[in-house]
Amino acid sequence: MIGVAHEAGKLNDLRAILGNDIAVKAYRDGTRPFPDGAIIARLAWEYVSSAENDAVFGQAQSFVPGSPTNVQFSVKDSKKFADTGGWGYGQFEGGKPNRSEVLMNTCAPCHAAVSSTNDFVFTRYAP
Amino acid sequence: MIGVAHEAGKLNDLRAILGNDIAVKAYRDGTRPFPDGAIIARLAWEYVSSAENDAVFGQAQSFVPGSPTNVQFSVKDSKKFADTGGWGYGQFEGGKPNRSEVLMNTCAPCHAAVSSTNDFVFTRYAP
Repeated sequence: MIGVAHEAGKLNDLRAILGNDIAVKAYRDGTRPFPDGAIIARLAWEYVSSAENDAVFGQAQSFVPGSPTNVQFSVKDSKKFADTGGWGYGQFEGGKPNRSEVLMNTCAPCHAAVSSTNDFVFTRYAP
Repeated sequence: MIGVAHEAGKLNDLRAILGNDIAVKAYRDGTRPFPDGAIIARLAWEYVSSAENDAVFGQAQSFVPGSPTNVQFSVKDSKKFADTGGWGYGQFEGGKPNRSEVLMNTCAPCHAAVSSTNDFVFTRYAP
């Protein structure tokens, strides 16, 4: 596991960020750019209140995963994905890949905002 | 991985809930009560805004893990912990166990609120 996060706004989700051994090792060692073979997975669920937990705590405070939204992957291959900083992107919904070019064309430009600070990756390692 | 959550209020954290193989299998199969040997770990971090991400998205929307707060464990042993529904509880701070009886005495009574619905466990499986 690499981290967790809550994205508010339009996304309004809870998310878990996982990595394969290559990605996790790079995170732990602080290696940037990530080596080829690193795979980062982002699972996300709707951000919902837990009425069950809130009843125990006596106030609205507990936010938990609702329905899954989508799963996104970032795959590092500096040759195959040379045009996008060495990262290829994918999104799965209900276990199936979303092949929309319109969607896929939005991944790399947004990740480029953190190209110099964290090799195109938004997630920082949870300490 | 079992799930993620945000607890607002005094806790104000982001948390990841992990399990050993016995706990994860029980979650996936819906087995309740959890079998002896199940271990559930709850890692938590301060809930902080990501200025770096927010700058990319153009609004305050990204909440990420700050400093770690504590790690809690629930261990199922129906004989050893018979007095507390079969669950033993522990909390670690900075890698060291908190042996405060005052703190430890608060675990079981609160978890008892979900004794009949989910075998004393707050976290539901993230679908």
